[in-house]
Amino acid sequence: MRGLMQDRPLALPHVFHRAEQLFGHKPIVTATVTGEVATTVAEWAVRVRRLATALDTLGVPADGRVATFCWNTAPHLELYMAAPCTGRVLHTLNIRLFPEQLVYIANHAEDDVVFVDRSLLPVFLPLRSQMRTVRHVVVIDDGADHPLPDDAIDYDELLASSDPFEGRFEVDDENQAAAMCYSSGTTGNPKGVVYSHRSTLLHSLITLTVDGLGLSERDVVMPVVPMFHANAWGLPYAALLAGSSTVFPGPNMTPKGVLSLLERHRVTVTAGVPTIWLGALPLLGGYDLSGLTRILCGGSAVPRSLSEAYRTTLGVPILHAWGMTETSPVATVASPRTQDDALDDDARADARVRQGQPTPLVELRVVEPSSGEVLPWDDKSSGEIQAAGPWVAAAYYRDESGAGPSGSSQFTEDGWLRTGDVATVDRYGSVRIVDRTKDLVKSGGEWISSVELENALMAHPKVVEAAVIGVPHERWVERPLACVVVEPGESLTPEEVRAHLEPLVPRWWLPDAVEFIDEVPKTSVGKFSKRTLRDKFAGYELPEVDPAGRA
Amino acid sequence: MRGLMQDRPLALPHVFHRAEQLFGHKPIVTATVTGEVATTVAEWAVRVRRLATALDTLGVPADGRVATFCWNTAPHLELYMAAPCTGRVLHTLNIRLFPEQLVYIANHAEDDVVFVDRSLLPVFLPLRSQMRTVRHVVVIDDGADHPLPDDAIDYDELLASSDPFEGRFEVDDENQAAAMCYSSGTTGNPKGVVYSHRSTLLHSLITLTVDGLGLSERDVVMPVVPMFHANAWGLPYAALLAGSSTVFPGPNMTPKGVLSLLERHRVTVTAGVPTIWLGALPLLGGYDLSGLTRILCGGSAVPRSLSEAYRTTLGVPILHAWGMTETSPVATVASPRTQDDALDDDARADARVRQGQPTPLVELRVVEPSSGEVLPWDDKSSGEIQAAGPWVAAAYYRDESGAGPSGSSQFTEDGWLRTGDVATVDRYGSVRIVDRTKDLVKSGGEWISSVELENALMAHPKVVEAAVIGVPHERWVERPLACVVVEPGESLTPEEVRAHLEPLVPRWWLPDAVEFIDEVPKTSVGKFSKRTLRDKFAGYELPEVDPAGRA
Repeated sequence: MRGLMQDRPLALPHVFHRAEQLFGHKPIVTATVTGEVATTVAEWAVRVRRLATALDTLGVPADGRVATFCWNTAPHLELYMAAPCTGRVLHTLNIRLFPEQLVYIANHAEDDVVFVDRSLLPVFLPLRSQMRTVRHVVVIDDGADHPLPDDAIDYDELLASSDPFEGRFEVDDENQAAAMCYSSGTTGNPKGVVYSHRSTLLHSLITLTVDGLGLSERDVVMPVVPMFHANAWGLPYAALLAGSSTVFPGPNMTPKGVLSLLERHRVTVTAGVPTIWLGALPLLGGYDLSGLTRILCGGSAVPRSLSEAYRTTLGVPILHAWGMTETSPVATVASPRTQDDALDDDARADARVRQGQPTPLVELRVVEPSSGEVLPWDDKSSGEIQAAGPWVAAAYYRDESGAGPSGSSQFTEDGWLRTGDVATVDRYGSVRIVDRTKDLVKSGGEWISSVELENALMAHPKVVEAAVIGVPHERWVERPLACVVVEPGESLTPEEVRAHLEPLVPRWWLPDAVEFIDEVPKTSVGKFSKRTLRDKFAGYELPEVDPAGRA
Repeated sequence: MRGLMQDRPLALPHVFHRAEQLFGHKPIVTATVTGEVATTVAEWAVRVRRLATALDTLGVPADGRVATFCWNTAPHLELYMAAPCTGRVLHTLNIRLFPEQLVYIANHAEDDVVFVDRSLLPVFLPLRSQMRTVRHVVVIDDGADHPLPDDAIDYDELLASSDPFEGRFEVDDENQAAAMCYSSGTTGNPKGVVYSHRSTLLHSLITLTVDGLGLSERDVVMPVVPMFHANAWGLPYAALLAGSSTVFPGPNMTPKGVLSLLERHRVTVTAGVPTIWLGALPLLGGYDLSGLTRILCGGSAVPRSLSEAYRTTLGVPILHAWGMTETSPVATVASPRTQDDALDDDARADARVRQGQPTPLVELRVVEPSSGEVLPWDDKSSGEIQAAGPWVAAAYYRDESGAGPSGSSQFTEDGWLRTGDVATVDRYGSVRIVDRTKDLVKSGGEWISSVELENALMAHPKVVEAAVIGVPHERWVERPLACVVVEPGESLTPEEVRAHLEPLVPRWWLPDAVEFIDEVPKTSVGKFSKRTLRDKFAGYELPEVDPAGRA
């Protein structure tokens, strides 16, 4: 027996028409190179309608990829809506990727047109000739004065010459592609995640729930997380759906620039990776941030000291969320739960830096990496987190890796996503990430968490940063090598490092060797590049260590 | 181009498994005839699993209708989950309907089994022999001592003798029916609304949003609105999805009983029709209700005086929501919006008793009842509210009325629901209901709002209640007749009534006649029964009124 409810697609045109109809009076502010531009949802909506016509004029095919190479701005939000509402696919290019990755991605996605912020032309233009399918480059004026290429189309002129599309946007099939974003976290070439209208709308709804990100009409939302990173965690769409006011920081992503905007516009909700909040910490005293109610943080683990520093300085703890490009991205949120109310201050601080409980519609399981056994939620058994849900990827776009039923080893036979994150989960479903699967060190039959070792190393006052990699070992399969960066002007010996670790980790985790390096190499998105370290130390000869010392 | 997201149905098994996995420790309290029963989600989940097996044992067909004749209780919540999670259809019978309506509904839905609270046996048993498809009656012990019929099955014994279903419930088609509820608001026989898994889950998500009903894990939720009224506004499913604690008031729905439960369990969110809160008002001073953060109210318009009385007494204004069985039911919520912040106290009190803005995914339009013209949102133009959205009915179950493309005149040709409510909408999309379409009085070419006339009449200190109906008139088509109930021991003349109205309404709205009656007849759900009044005054002869008096 079928339900007798209306057959209405979960699609982005609803978000557009709702915002236009109910929230036309709400402000949208964008910081530019030279100042600020203030507009309203009503004015923005007219520009979206003009842009829809312009995409036709440019001859972008019915499901053509509309690429963006942009900061967080109101024009970027116009593209966020006009591309999917006209049936096309928004493709946000990550401006921080390496040039060869950007070229690969644009060609793999077959981008038809690229919209570029003028301040980013120096990064983009050298790549353009290698992007084989790109027919047009449209330049968005953001106050920068870089010279324009001869054939560039001016964004504002394009809109001015286009009549607003009239009537309602229609996307009948909610499973149609709305947007795509390439994930660079895995080995090999970046892989394309393709969001559907349905997944995007459901994810937006979840960010409006109290235990999700809690966006409401009363909020002033400023996404610092880039709109080229998994749709800025869904905040731009969610803010339109909720009717929140929005502030877009544009190209000025310095701590000072971000804090000034938070203060001036009395932002209530902001979001960014830990690096941003770490950089802003020393400056907090100089700004009135009393409007803030939530500081969302994700992308990598939030150090407890950072979370506590914000809580004591601002009275607003960092709200930790976890996910990845493949999970749209929000999969868990560490919103405060009643089970933590009885904990002491110390344990509550620990709870705040967990990754939190899965949102509605997301399911998680912890799987032993070797055997595939599903592990209990006892907060002790650690294994890979696998995820399922309507906004979790089922496959990659034109995936050529050939492994697994969905074409990639990142999906299980029963269709779950292998996240590559290693975690324990407590009885309430709260996740605590301890490592990346590929960064675990397999010693004998047991796993050593490189991340826990690194945290222990970085707790030493003379250590700036540290990374641990596994090095092949005849008897133990792998043993840990610690790569340590020492404070300038200070010095450490391998023996001092081991002595520091001894009370902090199991004896058999102690690194067999310590190498001192100038800097831990980073990926294009600022994460530790263990791959580079492994290349650097390929063929490394570990010293003999007395096996008794591991007992 | 299709999205590459996982194909996961929006279905109630997700709600069950999520609650079982994450929220097993959360309490569920039920008030019974003799006391209270406390359980946990974990214990409840085992009983749901036993009930799933029991439905098989009873031979309930794959999509059989599982009817309930129950108060708000934990066992009712077991049925709420076990029936749809096993692919069957929950059918909540409204215990307050007239006997002939109940019999009609049970036969029309072809109920296979009925679960009845023991305290309701005296109401149910006389009807049973006329319910032609009902094969089993299962009696749920709620502390009442009414004698059991010979062939009754005891609910607890049934569960005790059934092994818990193991593994995961699966509902692959999200458009499958999950539950049904008959709407008695329209003319003719009650009509069956059939909720799908998709509509129910989406509606539940919306109730978790900040600007929806805002349910979270931290809440203690007590639905006073019956679980046989449009799924208690979706709160039982929403509370399970959010992980809220729940309190079910059982058969004791007196103001004193309700207030005691609110106090004892420090309820944070409660919900009921205005009658409940009106009845509780004089007793508020005797209870500590400082845990309350939201009092949801819907079903009929909230008098401004009631809203203000709660705001000043408790510091918690009533949160007004609007909808109907056909809209699952939440369609609008009057959550406080920024556009009201600048209003003075008086205007804000007015804003609080509006019906509010549509939730995400719901669309509304105002349509002139005669011409079908879509009217502007200027808060002046009044017309019928029509609704669209994924949890808005598209048709009635086995609808035999034969009108319109969906079989009923309650749906438009383009598939929208005619709500029958007459409203204005302001530029922010906030709805203000002014009447029911069928209760409008059509005088000349103009509409007179019976509800506004009634409110004006009831503002007279000697008037207990008043209803206005249209009476046929040769020249004006219809003219209003006021039916007034005067305070016991007081008296009023028609002239005094008209004199009272004169400064309050346009002259041409003044009733042509006033009749004094003992009581306004009510429907089975406590609303004014204008139909009964129209029958009573059929053929009524209006006096001659000087047309000049209408100018």
